[in-house]
Parts: sequence; C-alpha cells; structure tokens
Amino acid sequence: MRLANISDRLSLVTADDELIDIAQETGGRFSPRIQDCYDRWDELLEVAATLDGTAGRPLADVALHEFGNPAPQPRQVFAIGLNYADHAAEASLPVPEDLTVFTKFATSLAGPYGTIPLPPGTVDWEVELVAIIGRGGRHIPADRAWSYVAGVSVGQDLSERTLQAAGPAPQYSLAKSFPGFGPIGPLLATPDEFEDPDNIELGCSINGEQVQKGSTSDMVFPVPEIIARLSRITPLLPGDVIFTGTPPGVGVGRTPQRFLTPGDELVTYLRGVGEMRHRIQAMEQQ
Amino acid sequence: MRLANISDRLSLVTADDELIDIAQETGGRFSPRIQDCYDRWDELLEVAATLDGTAGRPLADVALHEFGNPAPQPRQVFAIGLNYADHAAEASLPVPEDLTVFTKFATSLAGPYGTIPLPPGTVDWEVELVAIIGRGGRHIPADRAWSYVAGVSVGQDLSERTLQAAGPAPQYSLAKSFPGFGPIGPLLATPDEFEDPDNIELGCSINGEQVQKGSTSDMVFPVPEIIARLSRITPLLPGDVIFTGTPPGVGVGRTPQRFLTPGDELVTYLRGVGEMRHRIQAMEQQ
Repeated sequence: MRLANISDRLSLVTADDELIDIAQETGGRFSPRIQDCYDRWDELLEVAATLDGTAGRPLADVALHEFGNPAPQPRQVFAIGLNYADHAAEASLPVPEDLTVFTKFATSLAGPYGTIPLPPGTVDWEVELVAIIGRGGRHIPADRAWSYVAGVSVGQDLSERTLQAAGPAPQYSLAKSFPGFGPIGPLLATPDEFEDPDNIELGCSINGEQVQKGSTSDMVFPVPEIIARLSRITPLLPGDVIFTGTPPGVGVGRTPQRFLTPGDELVTYLRGVGEMRHRIQAMEQQ
Repeated sequence: MRLANISDRLSLVTADDELIDIAQETGGRFSPRIQDCYDRWDELLEVAATLDGTAGRPLADVALHEFGNPAPQPRQVFAIGLNYADHAAEASLPVPEDLTVFTKFATSLAGPYGTIPLPPGTVDWEVELVAIIGRGGRHIPADRAWSYVAGVSVGQDLSERTLQAAGPAPQYSLAKSFPGFGPIGPLLATPDEFEDPDNIELGCSINGEQVQKGSTSDMVFPVPEIIARLSRITPLLPGDVIFTGTPPGVGVGRTPQRFLTPGDELVTYLRGVGEMRHRIQAMEQQ
C-alpha cells in the first residue's frame, strides 16, 4: 500500500495511481489529522484493505505544492549517523559499533517539493531512507521490527558541515535543523510493497548529475536493528520518524569538496517511493 | 506569576499558594490542554492577571502524583551541554565557543515526583534550569529574549555516561533519553517572579547530601544568549523546552566517580520554583 499527504490529509494511492482520501472514504472513522492514522495504524490497514478504489483524483493531477511530509507531527525524530561503512570512511570516521543517534528538530521537516533556503556556509546533501513508526513499543525484537513500521519514505538529511563539526563535543542536531533541512516524501510505502525491504536503491542528483547512489542493504545497522536498539532505550511512538543514515557520495567527502549553491536543483529518490525535487534558494538576509 | 500542571490541566498558583484552574475559571476560553495555553501565551497572561484569586484548592492539598511536567507536549526539546565553565572542566572538556546542542527525546520527559527506573550502568545527575517558550519566533534578539519565555522550571538531565561517550562521534541525545531521564517541575515561574532571572540558585542532593549547588549567573551562555543563538537556526515554538546546562558537581567528575544506585532519593531545586523529589528504582529486567 502506498499513501500520500495531500493538503494535510492522508490519501491512499491505488495501483492505478489514483487517490482515495481516507477521512472522506471512511465516513469520518479516521479524522483528517494524519497523526490520528498513525495512532490507530493497525486499524487503518484493515480499513484501507476494504476501500474499493472508487475512481478518485489521479495522482498526476495533484499540484506539487499540495504534497506534504507524510509524517507531519512526529513526537520524536531520530536520525542515525555513519550508518553506511563507505560513508563513514569518506567522513574520515571509523564505522560505529553502536548507533550514533541525533535528532532533526521538528521545524526542519518539510514536504517533498519546493525551495530550501540556503544558509551561508557549507551545506551538504544526504539521501536517506526514512522509516515511520506505525505500532509503537519498547524492546521491539529485530526479527519483528518491520511489523512496527507504518512505511518508508525518502528524506534528505541536509547538513551544515562547519557548524556540525564545531565545538569540543560536536553534536549533529542543530547543524542539521535549519528550516527545510529535513524534507520527506512524496509517498509512504508499506514494507510489503518491497520484495526485500532491507534492499532498496536510493540516491540523489544535483542539476541532473547523480552524486549519491546506494542500497539500504549496505547499512551497518539495518532498519530492524535500528528499531531494536533505539527501543531498548526509548519507547517508539506512532508517527515517530527515523532517518536511517546516508550512503557515500556527499560533498564533504569529495576532492575538492563540494557544497550546495543557490539555484541548484536537488532530486532525491528511493525506488518504490518516488522522488523529491527541491530548488536551493539563497536565504534572505536578516 | 507561578503555574503548575495539576492532573494535566494548567493552574495558576496564587500568592497564598492556592490553585486557580485556568480552563475552568476562564469559562472554557482556554482549553484544559496545556499546549493551548502556550500557543496563546500573551493572551493567557492578560487573562490570568484578571483572575481575582477566588479561594481555590490549597497547593498543599495536592497529592504528589497529581503534579505533572508543566511542558508536557513540546514539539522541540533543546538541551545545552557544557554551559557552566566549571562543569566543562570536571568533564575534561574545554569551554565551548558556541552552543553544544542535543535533544532529550519526548518519552524521557516526566513530572516532578515519583520514581525513575535506573538502567544498569553509570547514570549521573545534572540539575538544570529549564526555560519554556511562550511566544515563538526566529532571530530573537538577546536583549528581548526573556519576553519570549513563558517561564522557568527546574529539570534533571539524567545521563548514562558510558553510552554518552560511546562511538566515533558521540551524540548525547540517546544516553540522556531513557524513560524518566527528563523530569521537570513542580512549578513554572514567569521571568518577572525573579529579581534577576539570570541569577537563580539551583542544586540537587542525594539522600540529603548536597551534590550540586550553583547559580545560573555562571552560565557560559545565559538564557537570552541561548535563545538568540538557537533561534538564528531553528524557529522556536510555543511550549518548546530548553534544558540550559548543569553547574559542577556531577558524579562523573568526582574522585572516585559516583553514580546513582537503586533506593537513592534525588532532590532537585531551583530557588523560586521549588523542588522535585525522585526515588531511583532498579529497572525491571526485560
């Protein structure tokens, strides 16, 4: 099953790429508030399976600005650093023996299309698979962890590298939380949409030049292991978001280094979910 | 003005230490949902000034379990590391030249009384002033920053030191986010309650022995400077929480080192706000 946030309402996307508005088609059984769907995710799956796909609005007719982040109000946003060995190498850091966990603050989250304001400095790209929690829990075993995931989407973990490395005990969270630095979308795909949810291609390009391409099969800690390890410490809640780390190909690891500049078009994809498109825009002076 | 979360409703605490339930006394103009009060904080202040203090329930009659975290649903929780020079020294780290920012995940937040489950390991205490945002904004100037603060409270930034230091690029957030590791309370005091809101005594004790005592006047980055610097990057939202760092006296900086053990009673205070009391309890085996 694939879903989309269309104008802050959750819609089912049919096999024919038509939209079924869930609040409307269930006669109000689910509210238009997307978080309510995550809070009752198992029930949503049951109900969604019975929706017969009455001819709805074609996905192709939706204006880009109508697409929103499929997880618009997470109570917790987890982000994993250095989760692909080749990316750790290009960052000149060893592969971690346990999760490296930071957050992206909520005001950084954004939808899959539009502009991203570029602060002055050294802003880098990081394509990532984003997992959105359906059923919450604590001490979730890895071998059942996928059943706690509502679905996956694609995200960018945009990062201001100078700020990220600053200080005596550098913390990643703030440097990765400028407004627009955490776009997610355009679709949410349930894990059963994939032949193997632990082996999905992802990548991104700048102005048509592919700069990252990888597979989630190269993760140091695959999604089930991330969920198991996080939930040993913090309960996971419905609608929580996990950015799962980026494959190699970021700008800071290149010779010479390369960073985003105003006017760049950043396209970010996850096979089966689709692609986001963002225009990098000079930030207004304050 | 002082306020308290009593059974998930915001109450005004009068000069006579009696409670006025805001939703009830305003005839429903404010909903019982505490976040709604932060979302309309300036209006709340106006209305609260007109409440005449009809004899209400005495604060002393409230059972401890009725007190909740005065900021129960923040969309963003910021925490500042190494913000007192003497604490940076005991942590064997230089004083930062800019903010060291992490998060405490929402599931770690808790009320001012009760038990805290102790995971095995090296769990340390950190008394902190907690600032709760009233009026949100971006690019907030330091000289007006206190007017964006709804009030201050006291918090503990409990920290599992082994996990906190692990990995090639240690991130503090997860190690400080076990359930119960972020208690806040018992009262929220507006900045005008203090002669000088940048000079407030705070401390904590274990089993009656005072282990931390300091003043917020020793902060490297005082509250207004924290707000100015954070809001240059991320917009601050009503109800957001900022843990502002701890003065010296933590367990990891002692010789020999000392950590919390089951049965310990941890008392944490901020002058003008009151004290929290927590019993440390062995965590149930999973």
